[in-house]
Amino acid sequence: MSAQKPAPKKVVLAYSGGLDTSIILKWLQTEYGCEVVTFTADLGQGEELEPARQKALLLGIKEENIHIVDLREEFVRDFVFPMFRANAVYEGLYLLGTSIARPLISKKLVEIAQATGADAVAHGATGKGNDQVRFELGVAALDPAIKVIAPWREWDLMSRTQLLAFAEENQIPIAKDKRGEAPFSVDANLLHTSSEGKILENPAEEAPDYVAQRIVAVEDAPNTPEIIEITFEKGDATAINGEAMSPASILTKLNELGAKHGIGLLDFVENRFVGMKSRGVYETPGGTILLEAHRGIEQITLDSGAGHLKDSIMPRYAELIYNGFWFSPEREALQALIDHTQEYVTGTVRLKLYKGVARTIARWSDYSLYSEKHVTFEEDAGAYDQKDAAGFIHLNALRLRLVANRNARVKK
Amino acid sequence: MSAQKPAPKKVVLAYSGGLDTSIILKWLQTEYGCEVVTFTADLGQGEELEPARQKALLLGIKEENIHIVDLREEFVRDFVFPMFRANAVYEGLYLLGTSIARPLISKKLVEIAQATGADAVAHGATGKGNDQVRFELGVAALDPAIKVIAPWREWDLMSRTQLLAFAEENQIPIAKDKRGEAPFSVDANLLHTSSEGKILENPAEEAPDYVAQRIVAVEDAPNTPEIIEITFEKGDATAINGEAMSPASILTKLNELGAKHGIGLLDFVENRFVGMKSRGVYETPGGTILLEAHRGIEQITLDSGAGHLKDSIMPRYAELIYNGFWFSPEREALQALIDHTQEYVTGTVRLKLYKGVARTIARWSDYSLYSEKHVTFEEDAGAYDQKDAAGFIHLNALRLRLVANRNARVKK
Amino acid sequence: MSAQKPAPKKVVLAYSGGLDTSIILKWLQTEYGCEVVTFTADLGQGEELEPARQKALLLGIKEENIHIVDLREEFVRDFVFPMFRANAVYEGLYLLGTSIARPLISKKLVEIAQATGADAVAHGATGKGNDQVRFELGVAALDPAIKVIAPWREWDLMSRTQLLAFAEENQIPIAKDKRGEAPFSVDANLLHTSSEGKILENPAEEAPDYVAQRIVAVEDAPNTPEIIEITFEKGDATAINGEAMSPASILTKLNELGAKHGIGLLDFVENRFVGMKSRGVYETPGGTILLEAHRGIEQITLDSGAGHLKDSIMPRYAELIYNGFWFSPEREALQALIDHTQEYVTGTVRLKLYKGVARTIARWSDYSLYSEKHVTFEEDAGAYDQKDAAGFIHLNALRLRLVANRNARVKK
Amino acid sequence: MSAQKPAPKKVVLAYSGGLDTSIILKWLQTEYGCEVVTFTADLGQGEELEPARQKALLLGIKEENIHIVDLREEFVRDFVFPMFRANAVYEGLYLLGTSIARPLISKKLVEIAQATGADAVAHGATGKGNDQVRFELGVAALDPAIKVIAPWREWDLMSRTQLLAFAEENQIPIAKDKRGEAPFSVDANLLHTSSEGKILENPAEEAPDYVAQRIVAVEDAPNTPEIIEITFEKGDATAINGEAMSPASILTKLNELGAKHGIGLLDFVENRFVGMKSRGVYETPGGTILLEAHRGIEQITLDSGAGHLKDSIMPRYAELIYNGFWFSPEREALQALIDHTQEYVTGTVRLKLYKGVARTIARWSDYSLYSEKHVTFEEDAGAYDQKDAAGFIHLNALRLRLVANRNARVKK
Repeated sequence: MSAQKPAPKKVVLAYSGGLDTSIILKWLQTEYGCEVVTFTADLGQGEELEPARQKALLLGIKEENIHIVDLREEFVRDFVFPMFRANAVYEGLYLLGTSIARPLISKKLVEIAQATGADAVAHGATGKGNDQVRFELGVAALDPAIKVIAPWREWDLMSRTQLLAFAEENQIPIAKDKRGEAPFSVDANLLHTSSEGKILENPAEEAPDYVAQRIVAVEDAPNTPEIIEITFEKGDATAINGEAMSPASILTKLNELGAKHGIGLLDFVENRFVGMKSRGVYETPGGTILLEAHRGIEQITLDSGAGHLKDSIMPRYAELIYNGFWFSPEREALQALIDHTQEYVTGTVRLKLYKGVARTIARWSDYSLYSEKHVTFEEDAGAYDQKDAAGFIHLNALRLRLVANRNARVKK
Repeated sequence: MSAQKPAPKKVVLAYSGGLDTSIILKWLQTEYGCEVVTFTADLGQGEELEPARQKALLLGIKEENIHIVDLREEFVRDFVFPMFRANAVYEGLYLLGTSIARPLISKKLVEIAQATGADAVAHGATGKGNDQVRFELGVAALDPAIKVIAPWREWDLMSRTQLLAFAEENQIPIAKDKRGEAPFSVDANLLHTSSEGKILENPAEEAPDYVAQRIVAVEDAPNTPEIIEITFEKGDATAINGEAMSPASILTKLNELGAKHGIGLLDFVENRFVGMKSRGVYETPGGTILLEAHRGIEQITLDSGAGHLKDSIMPRYAELIYNGFWFSPEREALQALIDHTQEYVTGTVRLKLYKGVARTIARWSDYSLYSEKHVTFEEDAGAYDQKDAAGFIHLNALRLRLVANRNARVKK
Repeated sequence: MSAQKPAPKKVVLAYSGGLDTSIILKWLQTEYGCEVVTFTADLGQGEELEPARQKALLLGIKEENIHIVDLREEFVRDFVFPMFRANAVYEGLYLLGTSIARPLISKKLVEIAQATGADAVAHGATGKGNDQVRFELGVAALDPAIKVIAPWREWDLMSRTQLLAFAEENQIPIAKDKRGEAPFSVDANLLHTSSEGKILENPAEEAPDYVAQRIVAVEDAPNTPEIIEITFEKGDATAINGEAMSPASILTKLNELGAKHGIGLLDFVENRFVGMKSRGVYETPGGTILLEAHRGIEQITLDSGAGHLKDSIMPRYAELIYNGFWFSPEREALQALIDHTQEYVTGTVRLKLYKGVARTIARWSDYSLYSEKHVTFEEDAGAYDQKDAAGFIHLNALRLRLVANRNARVKK
Repeated sequence: MSAQKPAPKKVVLAYSGGLDTSIILKWLQTEYGCEVVTFTADLGQGEELEPARQKALLLGIKEENIHIVDLREEFVRDFVFPMFRANAVYEGLYLLGTSIARPLISKKLVEIAQATGADAVAHGATGKGNDQVRFELGVAALDPAIKVIAPWREWDLMSRTQLLAFAEENQIPIAKDKRGEAPFSVDANLLHTSSEGKILENPAEEAPDYVAQRIVAVEDAPNTPEIIEITFEKGDATAINGEAMSPASILTKLNELGAKHGIGLLDFVENRFVGMKSRGVYETPGGTILLEAHRGIEQITLDSGAGHLKDSIMPRYAELIYNGFWFSPEREALQALIDHTQEYVTGTVRLKLYKGVARTIARWSDYSLYSEKHVTFEEDAGAYDQKDAAGFIHLNALRLRLVANRNARVKK
């Protein structure tokens, strides 16, 4: 936003209650003289949210301007599960745990702005990362009339010292452990925990063991495997070990299981949308199990034509989510394709969890396309005529023969 | 080939020395009255090949018609490594261990046929599987004048009993342990071991522990992690722990390491090219490590544009290999693309091997594109102007805004 | 179908009333001793269908076994229009006029078989072409229990002489002009007319002028351009020059216009699914106009993200239709994607028809995404901040800079 | 570039000699006090370049700082022809005539900057268009140390009046016909002429006839068709009517032919990379013929596997060129794929040019894959066994049958 544009009058701030967003809160008040509405979401990050309310009150936010919302079910049902229908993986390895949470935050920022008559929203993402893009593309797609304020790109608080000075000047309480700098930056939600920055910035150096906070070290995981069964309906997990559960409960339970068995740790260098590479440590315990299981159930219920089509468009789908285009026409069109393929992706997968690995060991379904009658090494009672294979091969080979003959001819 | 066509005079048989291909050998002699040339390849399957020579001699094959060839280096250098440059995975999980060996066998069958004046080749693959397709497409592409005989699709030996009767009638020695039927069928080479059929035919039933023969059970793997370093040059592994090694030696060493640590076990239901689903247990110890490491080195040396392009064409490339189109114009064109991207994929990856998992924990390269200067959370001395992000986002958002405004307008 | 399988008892034959399908009719009766049901479709091929009824009666088909159905509206509404939503073009040029008619015929064959208790269907396509594949994949997908009989692949009537002899032996009337061989083979429906074979078999020789039967020679087309307007709703044409019309009426009218102005003639060498190249002359007058117009309306109503996604999957979609996979899970999934993009493809296109060319010259829509405010060379009142472009470019360039610096560094 | 950065000392300006770039020239001198080097390219735009030299001298540019270069051969050989190997078309219709010229200009700007010790380059593209992106991405990829100055994004000359005032103040000669505003903006090179802006800004209004300046109106084109033959070697045109010619001469000749026959006119609304839609009128006479001919020769010389692969990646390739990523790793990797497919794209195409249409009517090649023996309707002497088709179809149908049976089962 250029300087000439009118200052916002009322801003909804994505507010965690932490030091940084508290500074932003104050800065918005002082820089723009605007009314601030706080929005604090429970996305399963595992933190108490009531302190955020107290801190907002302390910073002068009116009671009715404080919004604390439990988004866990919506997050899993409308964002995580649709994404997992696609087996989405970014750059071969990353399960998009941060990326998929951002559009939901944008959605709620916009909804609260519309409900409270705010003309702007603000977020605490820096100018180097992907999250600013994801937040702002989401807002633009959902309500282009709402302005977005990104203080990290605007202000002149360029160092930790300056930030702390601003906090002290403005009577923002600073927790003792925030005086020093954290050795790395953490983001968490029900799907994953990411760590990046500072001590992780050199990809040639191993991440210290203490970086992984959510998943038990494989060395400390139980010495006995655990067998679980996950049931799917139309591509979404609906039960664990036969017990029907809500989307968020499923993921919560899988997180417990995965964390216990050391599953879902990733040390990764990725390409950010803004053009640079960055290194992160990602912990996705439940998601890693879920992906394995979803592939397991698709193996028997999904036709190869639909399956290969899904595989071929998946990288683009994952890239769109990574880059922040969840609310774009093309992501929605791809979702229509993906959802269409999931009509019969219903059944149960048995997995073995052990020492960092979740492995499908059996799967069954009333919707199975697997035909033992066709595949058997035994007598198949005419289900399959092996002589058909000759014709199949001859016609698949025809163009290769024509090419070979041509090439031989012209090389003479 | 229809019955009217003239019978082959001299046939090169892909001969393992086992009972089945010995029966085929005899059947070719009796059915067609043709001269048989045997070709036995060392692809790293871990079996002695001299017994195949003795058995061929016993079955009346002339000394000069027996070809035993060590193909391990060619296999890894010209087939496995080019495929791994693409991070090729079929249907999300399968590393194509059987698929990639078939074209090399076709190539050698053709070369030996051309060298010995044979007018046909024969293989022991059944009419239900992918291997017949792979063998025959390979031969068609390399020398369309050579006929292919697929006895399993032609003969009337439809049961184990009939096969054994034929063997006895024709004085083919039958090893004691071949009297009964094997509980499942095995194929092995330097890249992997596959098991399928019989007791594995029901995907709802777990594979017994004894199916996995190559990889140590995770429960029995060492309780101490092992750290290794793999060096790559232009996308191919060239050294382990700093020691330069040949392609086959690298893969052999990685197999040892992977097998020891229980890495690379897969229980999988896949879609065969001939139209049915089948279930297999695959062990790919070294390949699993290699894939992880190759992704690790690409993370810092490959540009995102090239990387995302590779990701997007990978499913098609993997499908081509799976379906037997290695020697097709389109696989070769895709290879040209892939190889082009590997020019700077040079550097070293450190991995931790432990209890079934190979995990990249560090990577470095003189060719790195990672820029700590750009990504740092610290002061970056102007390397990156955060204000640029505003413009970047505004223009990426522009079309989303226009869509949102349009949709709002027409929904009124 | 192998010989051992039981002969069909009742067969629905795709019957044109012409000599070839009359011979098939008789052959089915004599070869299999089965009851024959005829199915003759009006797909807009421009022939009287009553003679087919008379001929069927003459050949002994019972009145109740003769099915003559007008499929023109279903053809355009459920097959042609959905395909045109995708801008489907095979191998850059072919509008799939034959391909798209085949699945509808399969559908009707199956419906009539199910309604009449027939256990088989039969078609008159040869063993070299694509149509046999399209018919049979359609039947397999719709009712796998129904057998398909393809007489051209089964019988021993291998020459024109043998066919005529069979006809005479069986009292099949032979039109005088069918005594000699037609100089090429023709297929027609409401979307197109194709000509191939015989005198067209050498692609180095020009097709004689008389091959094109449907479209006026450009030289003879009017010397005055004609301006028309086509209105679309959700991607489908619904009106011409403001007059609302049914799907088949729209295509009929566009055919008249296109034919009159010499629009839609293609001389083409294509790759058949069965592995060979073939040459055809295609006339698609209305379809050519429709494609141009559909692109024209998409230009202003479709977002670039959705548009580029559609473009990227179109070749695969076209290939699926060409190869006969209309009733496949993957075509249906792609259709879900395509249809999703068409929600706002509503508006009107003005085209100029003249001397072989249909050219969009204007287009407007209440759903337009075109923003004159943004694009204008004039003062834009702040709609677009040109300074944003600097940031947009800098971040798009960042990775290119990093690559350039790396390459310069390592090349030293 | 932010204001704090040091001002450039020496700038290479892409200089046309026209009013706008003359103003830029002066503005660079006055704003930055820097030395200006002019670069004027002959890309076949059809204008005299010597006046640009005179004007530069008049504006105080030193003789040795004036660079006028004939780039026509390099343009066609290294940019146009490689692109046409891909049959590249943006959004279904646009032949990328402007897009493909920009990277060459970037390349020359960088070369001259390096040769003259300049630390910056400047261009006259506005902040709303694609050209700024193309220029600047090119420079970033080729020499990231060189700064780019884009005056239209920097200065405050926001209206025609201000520009003319600046020109007068600075003694820049103003041609009489430049006093008033041009009714639309034109860009031209050997491949195409584009017109956009002003009177073309409303896509619902037809472009006046006088907009098309390069191509004869179809109504005025000759009443007699013209038959030409174009010969290709490895995908590039090398001769017309049997006469070998250089790349630029080929395109020049095709331009004459196309312009004469009214071929290559397009009225188009496209999606700019910067997020808005714009409308242009494009004239690509020679390129339109070349695309048709290239497709014609590929029809007989390119295998379907390679051809379909090319088709599937083409939209992405075209998008990369449109967006300015010519010098990107992914465009180069795609080019490696495309070039690999062109090895045998050698032969001759005969076309009929008439009244706006270039239509392939015959094609032949020593490298042809067309097999009359296989495709013939006549007796084929066993080249093709029609019975193979049954097996081919049965196995392609197998998965469809399994899906149909599953669906029927679960729907009961």
